[in-house]
Parts: sequence; C-alpha cells; structure tokens
Amino acid sequence: MRWDQMQDENCSVARTLSVIGDRWTMLILRDAFLSIRKFEDFQKDLSISRQRLSERLKKLVDEGVLKKTAYQSGPARFEYRLTAKGLDLYPVIMAMVNWGDKYLDKGRGAPMLYKHAKCDHYFTAQLSCSECGEVLSPRDVRPEIGPGKANVRLPVDRIDGRVYPVTAKSDR
Amino acid sequence: MRWDQMQDENCSVARTLSVIGDRWTMLILRDAFLSIRKFEDFQKDLSISRQRLSERLKKLVDEGVLKKTAYQSGPARFEYRLTAKGLDLYPVIMAMVNWGDKYLDKGRGAPMLYKHAKCDHYFTAQLSCSECGEVLSPRDVRPEIGPGKANVRLPVDRIDGRVYPVTAKSDR
Repeated sequence: MRWDQMQDENCSVARTLSVIGDRWTMLILRDAFLSIRKFEDFQKDLSISRQRLSERLKKLVDEGVLKKTAYQSGPARFEYRLTAKGLDLYPVIMAMVNWGDKYLDKGRGAPMLYKHAKCDHYFTAQLSCSECGEVLSPRDVRPEIGPGKANVRLPVDRIDGRVYPVTAKSDR
Repeated sequence: MRWDQMQDENCSVARTLSVIGDRWTMLILRDAFLSIRKFEDFQKDLSISRQRLSERLKKLVDEGVLKKTAYQSGPARFEYRLTAKGLDLYPVIMAMVNWGDKYLDKGRGAPMLYKHAKCDHYFTAQLSCSECGEVLSPRDVRPEIGPGKANVRLPVDRIDGRVYPVTAKSDR
C-alpha cells in the first residue's frame, strides 16, 4: 500500500492520517492551536524550510483545515486560521499532549499546563463516551462493521452530520 | 530541526510524534487495538514490507508501547501486545477515528461503529475535562508554561505519576 492510496482506505484512522499524518503538519496544527497565524511565525517557531512549510500550509488549506485570509492589503499579507474542521482536530492534539506529558516528561513535569476556563482548574484531557459521559477504556469498547464498510448498503440516517445505520440510530 | 532531534524538543506533541509520528506506526497501533498480534497478521493487513514492519515493531517494543512475548516454543513464535503505556494511546487513535468519521466518510457513514459495553450505546468519543467532566473546546482552554519548560525549576510534586507545580497542585 502506498501513502497516496491512504485516503481511499476504508478506515477513518488511515483517512485522517492521509490529511494530518505528516509530522510537520501536526506541529503546524499545534502552533495554530497556540494562536500562531503568520507564515513567518510558523517558520521561525518550527525552523522548517519555506518550501516545506508552504507545501504543508497549502495542503491544509486545500483540505479545509486552515483558511487563508488577507489581514492587510498593499502589500497583501495573509494569515492562516483554523476552520471549524480544523478546530475539531483539538482532541487529536490534546490526546498527544496528554500521552507525552505522562510518559515523556523526562521527570521534569509537563512543558505546558492547561487550565479549563469554565471550571478554573488545571486539567488533563480524557476521552469520554458521548452517550453516558464515562471515561472510555479500550476494554469496554466493541467495534462493529459500520455502514461505510458494509458490502450491502445498510439503511442509514444522518444525525448531527454523521451517518448511522438505522439499527444503531434506534439504539441511540 | 531534524526528526531525530524531536524527542529533545520541549513539547509533548513533538515528543509523542517522535514515538508514534510515523504513519505506518499509527496503523500498526490501530491494528493492535483491533486485537491483531502476530507479525504475519500485521503484514497481511497492512501490505507492508517485512523489513519496514520489523523496524516499526522493534521501535514500539524498544519504546515500551508493545511487548513481544513467546506464545509457543519449538519453534518459538512471538506475538506483540499493547502494554499499559500502549493502551494509553487509545485516545489518540479514537480522536483520529472520530475526525475521519465526521469529515472523511465520503457520505457513506463510518466504516466502523463503536459500542460502549458499559452503557450499551453506540458512541462517539469526546474529549472532556478531568476536573469537571465537561466536553472541552479549545476556546475554553488557557495554556501556561509548565514546570518542564520553566527556566527556573519550580517547586513540584507528583500526583498520579505526573509532575505539577505546587501552585497548580494546590489549585486542583
């Protein structure tokens, strides 16, 4: 399997990796979540070549993860901001932060702390079930073939923009 | 910056990427969470060269993410299982699944559905605050310099294996 075939894989992990699976791309996204917006600032923060950065930013704009907008005219200057689709990558970034903080802190503690403005506490991000709110453990999760993988098209319905099989829906 | 310097970066995203930032590695982990354990089965599922797979598995074992154990002697046969450190990567995988399901399903629905055995519902994984349990939005999170990045060593304490500055701890 080649990487340019990844987006055609019938797996959401593989498809997500086809967009953000490049390591530079992940660091650009990290920076975007830390409010970096200008080409020069990304370049300075990442010590990445201009061409490499330019390619990665273009791909993220093409994929609808970042939006390129002029913030100044004559001469035109652009900035890159996360779209709603880009902001939805926050759990991926925070899950990585969490794991790095826990296992790769070299005994010195987390490089960054995160405070939740709503409850005013330092927190660690955890993965929870959308239905009951409990913290998820892989041992409690049963994967099943979904509508996007079934050989026969299952009757499906859309809830909140996502496709569910009708049986799954009635179960929700 | 070169990739072999990543683990020395003072950032948990960069450090995590130094371990799992390779795309094949992420797909091996996905397979491991789907209970694939044997070299031949990984190879078949991923259509990856034996050498490439062998390198990736070795790195994951060296990093303590997978454990290689003999399940048969004469001839010896080995399997690769997620360690506790590996199981803790579940949020990274599920966050990717979620995003792919939402944005890259090609209108057909999720390739896989996930049922939470504890509440018996199909769910989507969400990121929540360890302190108040609310779903996290990047807009509600304030990052601060942590003990691992401070120029001056802050007084720290360990809670649940993690280092917190004393001020942060008293706030918890």
